[in-house]
Amino acid sequence: MSEFNAKDHPHRRYNPLTGDWVLVSPHRAKRPWQGQIETAATEQNPSYDHSCFLCPTNTRISGDLNPDYKKPYVFTNDFAALTADTPFYQRSDDDLFVLKAERGTSRVICYSPDHSLTMPELCVAEIQNIVEEWIRQYQDLSKTYNWVQVFENKGAINGCSNPHPHGQIWANSTVPTLPAKADAAQREYLAKHGKNLLLNYAALEQQSGERTVVENDHWLVVVPFWASWPFETLVLPKAHVRRMEDLTEEQQAALADILQQITIRYDNLFQCSFPYSMGWHSAPYRNDAGGDTAENIEHWQLHGHFYPPLLRSATIKKFMVGYEMLAETQRDMTPEQAAERLKEQSPVHYKQQSK
Amino acid sequence: MSEFNAKDHPHRRYNPLTGDWVLVSPHRAKRPWQGQIETAATEQNPSYDHSCFLCPTNTRISGDLNPDYKKPYVFTNDFAALTADTPFYQRSDDDLFVLKAERGTSRVICYSPDHSLTMPELCVAEIQNIVEEWIRQYQDLSKTYNWVQVFENKGAINGCSNPHPHGQIWANSTVPTLPAKADAAQREYLAKHGKNLLLNYAALEQQSGERTVVENDHWLVVVPFWASWPFETLVLPKAHVRRMEDLTEEQQAALADILQQITIRYDNLFQCSFPYSMGWHSAPYRNDAGGDTAENIEHWQLHGHFYPPLLRSATIKKFMVGYEMLAETQRDMTPEQAAERLKEQSPVHYKQQSK
Ligand SMILES: O=P(O)(O)O[C@H]1O[C@H](CO)[C@@H](O)[C@H](O)[C@H]1O
Ligand SMILES: O=P(O)(O)O[C@H]1O[C@H](CO)[C@@H](O)[C@H](O)[C@H]1O
Repeated sequence: MSEFNAKDHPHRRYNPLTGDWVLVSPHRAKRPWQGQIETAATEQNPSYDHSCFLCPTNTRISGDLNPDYKKPYVFTNDFAALTADTPFYQRSDDDLFVLKAERGTSRVICYSPDHSLTMPELCVAEIQNIVEEWIRQYQDLSKTYNWVQVFENKGAINGCSNPHPHGQIWANSTVPTLPAKADAAQREYLAKHGKNLLLNYAALEQQSGERTVVENDHWLVVVPFWASWPFETLVLPKAHVRRMEDLTEEQQAALADILQQITIRYDNLFQCSFPYSMGWHSAPYRNDAGGDTAENIEHWQLHGHFYPPLLRSATIKKFMVGYEMLAETQRDMTPEQAAERLKEQSPVHYKQQSK
Repeated sequence: MSEFNAKDHPHRRYNPLTGDWVLVSPHRAKRPWQGQIETAATEQNPSYDHSCFLCPTNTRISGDLNPDYKKPYVFTNDFAALTADTPFYQRSDDDLFVLKAERGTSRVICYSPDHSLTMPELCVAEIQNIVEEWIRQYQDLSKTYNWVQVFENKGAINGCSNPHPHGQIWANSTVPTLPAKADAAQREYLAKHGKNLLLNYAALEQQSGERTVVENDHWLVVVPFWASWPFETLVLPKAHVRRMEDLTEEQQAALADILQQITIRYDNLFQCSFPYSMGWHSAPYRNDAGGDTAENIEHWQLHGHFYPPLLRSATIKKFMVGYEMLAETQRDMTPEQAAERLKEQSPVHYKQQSK
């Protein structure tokens, strides 16, 4: 029998933030693809689209008028999934019919007035404006809610219905399922190891370099050891930062830089506008328990996730179906191989290269 | 303030099999859809396709020849995600780099020699042949493995690369993430309530009828109270059945009937070949602990899951992205509304109706 080799042999890896495992089948990358082919996101949009609900000065579906904004612009989603005035209610019959009314809000953040641009095409100062707006949103929404979910869905293939550069911010009374798991996992890790889970992880990844895609003085972007999606990455501060609003100005500027760096590599990988879901996990608040409990979030480390659906090219995505829905997430190439591919991309956006 | 009403107000429901919550935003179904439009699965395939790797007498990509099969035909996947001879290995550095070699196999099961048919178009006797083959597979693979995952990916939109009616069977040394959760949840429920979780649930759903889509003497199909996908259903035996191989002949015949009934309703809903991932959770085996532990699976109830991606029509699917990937699964219409829609469908397949 040959010796085990992670590049050749099926194995499972453990995600310490969720408690889930992922099945890695590296030998499987060779199989031919005969399934659905997506449309590559390569078309160039105009800088202003008069039918776009997000462009400055346009009228939204609600009838509201967008201002002639120059910096990131935030408004409440016209079809919000959460409402601020939900009446209280809960039931729990037989521990089987468990239901709890939920309060919250959901907002849209337009990144730029320019309809044609996406994050990797913005300059660092423009991305820093987005970071600053995210921070203001955390500060504002944490007065009322316990969880603030900052995220972006990018690309039609990824369920995004409008190419205008924008993200979303949803806030909840209750900490949702996934951040609640990340909270418990980080708390337990600190109790068991006396170390912060993600701070320790970032230090070890920095030493190894094996999964590092890009880094600067304050931030590290790695394909995590337990990545589910083919080109998934994790954005980690090098210092201990509990919440996004705790970032110093220097760390904010460096975050803008690292976001530009990683998204440029993504676009360059398949020479297309690379689709993804991206979002932040910043320590939860505890309004219901009466006041902020800053002293109880020592275990938490701010981190960003990029979950991109593409697998082999601009038109072939990974389907998380069948075995994944019923048994366990499965991936073909290893996280180390994915990091290698991303790392070798040019730091200059492909649209700039051809100029 | 108005009184809480699950049809109008955002709320969260708890999934007792996974421990996850789902955010329900019923008021949101009204939002207009401007996102990606899929191709409707309405084309009629020929009964035999000479370029299909699964049709009888054809040569597969591996060079192997398919026999002229008449009943369900099983072979080992030419690009299996799991291998039987993986060398043993494990590491767990800092509880962060946790990796375990995995053994297993993956097989393909062709449901019918007829390339043009899908499950709802097969007669009950033909579906019963599939059930019998599944049982033989459980019996065979459980000699070596601890988990056998029977499933089907149907539809190009759902990652299926070949319309020939077929499913898959993957087997693992280790019980994968999701069935491991279902195992723990059922065990704890029995310990706490002195009742089998899903048997109790089926009895309560039968009484209420509110979420029941179809039923016969031995089986119940409901949109579960905690459904994630818009038209997700759960297939439950009415009696206590731990494993698929424990089904009596009568229960097997009734299973074939109920599978036909639910899949016909699915096709009729949007008048298309309805895409889904479907699969079974049958009690795990314990080969590594030395011998079968039939006496320790009292808590388990056999059940089938249908996870269909469509949301509003044959061309508009639900995207599980953004908030779903970062925070929590979210659905628009309530499970009760989905059950209502499915229940009112004709028991006759739409292609038969037009004849
Ligand atoms: O083996 P197939 O059908 O080619 O592959 C399909 O099903 C597998 C098991 O659910 C998934 O891992 C793949 O992402 C999907 O494309
Ligand atoms: O609100 P949007 O962008 O229209 O909707 C999109 O993002 C939401 C939040 O991630 C998802 O729940 C929807 O399934 C998706 O279509």
